Amino acid sequence: MRMIDVIDHKRNGGELTDEEIQFFVDGVVNGTIPDYQISALLMAIYFQNMTKEERASLTIKMMESGEHLDLSEIPGIKVDKHSTGGVGDKVSLPLAAVVAAVGIPVPMISGRGLGHTGGTLDKLEAIPGYQIEISEKDFISQVKDEKLAIIGATGDIAPADKKIYSLRDVTDTVDSIALIASSIMSKKIASGTDALVIDVKTGSGAFMKTLEDSTELAEALVDIGKGVGMKCMALISDMNQPLGNKIGNALEIEESIDLLKGKGPKDLVDLVLTLGSYMVLLGEKAKTFDEAKQMLEKTIADGSALDRFKAMIKAQGGDERVIEDYTIMPQAKYKIELPAKEAGVVAKITADEIGIASMLLGGGRQKASDKLDYAVGIELHKKIGDAVQAGESLMTIYANQPEAEIESIKDLIYQNVEIAETATAPKMIYKIID
Amino acid sequence: MRMIDVIDHKRNGGELTDEEIQFFVDGVVNGTIPDYQISALLMAIYFQNMTKEERASLTIKMMESGEHLDLSEIPGIKVDKHSTGGVGDKVSLPLAAVVAAVGIPVPMISGRGLGHTGGTLDKLEAIPGYQIEISEKDFISQVKDEKLAIIGATGDIAPADKKIYSLRDVTDTVDSIALIASSIMSKKIASGTDALVIDVKTGSGAFMKTLEDSTELAEALVDIGKGVGMKCMALISDMNQPLGNKIGNALEIEESIDLLKGKGPKDLVDLVLTLGSYMVLLGEKAKTFDEAKQMLEKTIADGSALDRFKAMIKAQGGDERVIEDYTIMPQAKYKIELPAKEAGVVAKITADEIGIASMLLGGGRQKASDKLDYAVGIELHKKIGDAVQAGESLMTIYANQPEAEIESIKDLIYQNVEIAETATAPKMIYKIID
Repeated sequence: MRMIDVIDHKRNGGELTDEEIQFFVDGVVNGTIPDYQISALLMAIYFQNMTKEERASLTIKMMESGEHLDLSEIPGIKVDKHSTGGVGDKVSLPLAAVVAAVGIPVPMISGRGLGHTGGTLDKLEAIPGYQIEISEKDFISQVKDEKLAIIGATGDIAPADKKIYSLRDVTDTVDSIALIASSIMSKKIASGTDALVIDVKTGSGAFMKTLEDSTELAEALVDIGKGVGMKCMALISDMNQPLGNKIGNALEIEESIDLLKGKGPKDLVDLVLTLGSYMVLLGEKAKTFDEAKQMLEKTIADGSALDRFKAMIKAQGGDERVIEDYTIMPQAKYKIELPAKEAGVVAKITADEIGIASMLLGGGRQKASDKLDYAVGIELHKKIGDAVQAGESLMTIYANQPEAEIESIKDLIYQNVEIAETATAPKMIYKIID
Repeated sequence: MRMIDVIDHKRNGGELTDEEIQFFVDGVVNGTIPDYQISALLMAIYFQNMTKEERASLTIKMMESGEHLDLSEIPGIKVDKHSTGGVGDKVSLPLAAVVAAVGIPVPMISGRGLGHTGGTLDKLEAIPGYQIEISEKDFISQVKDEKLAIIGATGDIAPADKKIYSLRDVTDTVDSIALIASSIMSKKIASGTDALVIDVKTGSGAFMKTLEDSTELAEALVDIGKGVGMKCMALISDMNQPLGNKIGNALEIEESIDLLKGKGPKDLVDLVLTLGSYMVLLGEKAKTFDEAKQMLEKTIADGSALDRFKAMIKAQGGDERVIEDYTIMPQAKYKIELPAKEAGVVAKITADEIGIASMLLGGGRQKASDKLDYAVGIELHKKIGDAVQAGESLMTIYANQPEAEIESIKDLIYQNVEIAETATAPKMIYKIID
C-alpha cells in the first residue's frame, strides 16, 4: 500500500477502508509516513469528511496505537464524563463525587487547561499534596475502594492521536468534526470506561460557537461511542457566559466543595445534576431521570457526596482539611472589585474573554509550558439576567499584582460585560443526544 | 504573517493576497515554512482553486524566486513553444527550424522525458556531440546569429516551483489546474521569451485525458501569460495515438529531419505547420494564418528550414553529418516486426502504453536517474484509420535485446492496438485558445 493512494482515495471522495486507516495510523506511529503526507490527508479529510464507519475505524486504530487501561477488575458499570471544555467548568469535581456516592464507579481521566479554558487536573493541584499521577494499579484499587479517582493519563495513550493532533494544530485542520470526534473518543476508549456522558459546550467560550456545530460534534461522538460498543450519550450545554461564579484553580475547588455542601450556584448545580442523572441511568442505578436526580440530590443533602470527595483527596495524597478550610490553598494578595458603570440588567459576559482575563492573571496557560498561579482568578457576582445598580460590584478579581498593574485586564473584562435595559438568563441545557 | 493564517484564508475559500503569496513563496525557498504546512496549503488550493489574479501572482513570484534570462539583446520578437508532453512528440525539433527560417528568433528551453513521455533534450543528445548545456551568453549569441537554439534550463530557474513540485508529486496535489499552470508558466516566463505558443495535449497519452480538462488548462496557461504581458496562445492537439510514426530518441531525430526534407508524416506536418503559423503570427512576420503557413511550407521546400536545423546542431557541438547519415546515431541491434493478427482497420493505438513500451525497451526513464538507450524505440507502419491485412506489419520494434527477451513488451503493444471493421483517424487539432 502507498500513502499517496490513500490520500488520493480520500481526496476523490472515497471511503477509506479499515486496511487503509490501519496503514495510515501505523505509519504515523512508526514514522514511515512523512509529515507532509499526513497533513495532505488531514486536509483532504477536512474537505471530504469521513463516514461513521471511517470515524469509528480511525478511533479504534488510534486507541490501539497505544496503551489502554483494563478496568474489568472493578465491579459494576464504570461511568466517565467528558467535556469539550469551557470557562469556569469545574463540573467534573462535584459530579464525580455525587455519582460515586450512589455507588457507581467513576474512573475519571482528565486533562490540563490551555488558553481560555481551565483543566480539571490544574484545579485539583491547587489542593496541597494532591497527586494526579498515580499508577494504574493504585487507580484501579482506589476506584474499587472509594468509587472515584481523578487522574492524568497514565502511560502512552493513543500516540497516533498525539502526533496527528500536533500536525492538525499547525496545518489548519483542527476544526474537522471527524478528526475532533476520533481524537476525543480514541482517548476515552483507551481509558477503559464502560459508559460515557459527554458535555458538549456551545457558545462564545466553547470550541463550537453555534448550536448546529455543537450538535454535529455531539452526534459524531455518540455515534463513535456506540459504534465501538460503549454506552454513550451527550448533552449540549451553554458556554456563552462562564459556568458557576468562580474562575481560577483554587477558587473553583472552593465552589465545587460549596456545591457538595448544598451551596452551589444554580447553573452549576443544574448542569451537575443533569449530567449526573444521565451517568446514573447509564450506570443502571435508576430507571428514570427523575429518580436518578433525586438520588443525587440526596447525596448532597446527606453529606455522602462531600464524603466521597474528601475520600478521593485523601487517597490521592491531598490535604483533606481543604474541605473545611479553603485557606490552606494558595490565596491571592489582592481582591479588586469591578463596580458596574451603570444600572441595568447584565446582558452579556463573554465567556472566552473572561477566561483569557483569568489566564492573564496567571490562572491559565498561554502555552503548555507556562506555570500556574493557583490563587488568582475571578468571582462573578452577577450573571446574565441579573439586575445591577451603578457602582455595585460585578466581579471580584483575585490577583497577586496590585491593581495598578492589571489595568489592561480590568479593561478587557469591562469590554466583555454588557449591561442593557433587559436580558434573560440563557438556557443551561440545549439538547440531549442519545 | 503566519503560515497557518494563509492556509486558513485559502481553506475557507478566500483569495490569497499578493503579500500572502509572496510570504508563501519566500518561505518555501528559504525553508522557513515546514513541508507539512506547504502540503496543507497545496491540498487546500486543490479543493478551493485559485483566481486568475492568484495564479498570475503565484507564477510571477515563483519565477522571481530564481534566475531568469534577459534576452533583450536579441532583436525581434522572440517566440517559444511549450508542449504539455506526449508520445512521439518531437514537434519542437522541426518547429524551431521552420520558424527560425522565416527570421523569427526561437530561444527554446526544453526538458527531459519521464515515464511514457519523451523529452526534446534526450532526443537531441542522440546526435553525437550535441551539447544541451551552454552558457547564457552563448545561448543569446547563437539565437542572434542562427535564429534558434534548443537548450536545457540554465541556472537556478524557479526554485520555489522545484520544491513545490516535488511535494505535489507525493501529496496527491499534482492535478490542480491552478498549480500546473503556475508551474509551467513560471519556468516559461523565466526563460525570457516575448511570445509563447502552447501545445496542450489531450487524450490517452496526455496528462489531461479529456477535452474539458485540456481546455481548462489551456485557458489557465493563456490567462497567466497574458496576465504578465506575454503574447500567448494555445491549441489543443490529439494525443490518443502517438504523434508521427517514430518513437525513440534517434528515431525521432530521423523523423524530424525527414520532415524538414519534405518527407514528414501527415499528422506531424499538420501540427508543426499549425503551431508554426501561430508562432509566425505572434512574431509578426505574417498577417494571416494562411500567409504564415505558406511561408513555413516554403522553408521546407527550399531547404532553408533544414539549413537552420543543421546550423543549430553545428553551433551546439553536434555532428551535422547526421542530416545526411542517420547511422552516425546509435543503431539498434534487432528489428522485430509485429504483424497484425487479423485484417481490418486500426481503431486504437493507446498512446501512453506504447510510450511505456518504448520506455521499457530502454528509450525512456522510469525514474529521473535512469540512463537512456538512444537507439531503441518503435516505428508505426499503421495509424488509426489505416487498413491492415492479417500478417502485415503494424510496427517495427527497434531493440538491443533479442526478440525472446522482449515478449512482455510485444504483449503490451498488442494489448494496446485494436483492429476493428471501421475506424476513422482522429482530428489533429481540437481547439485554438487565444
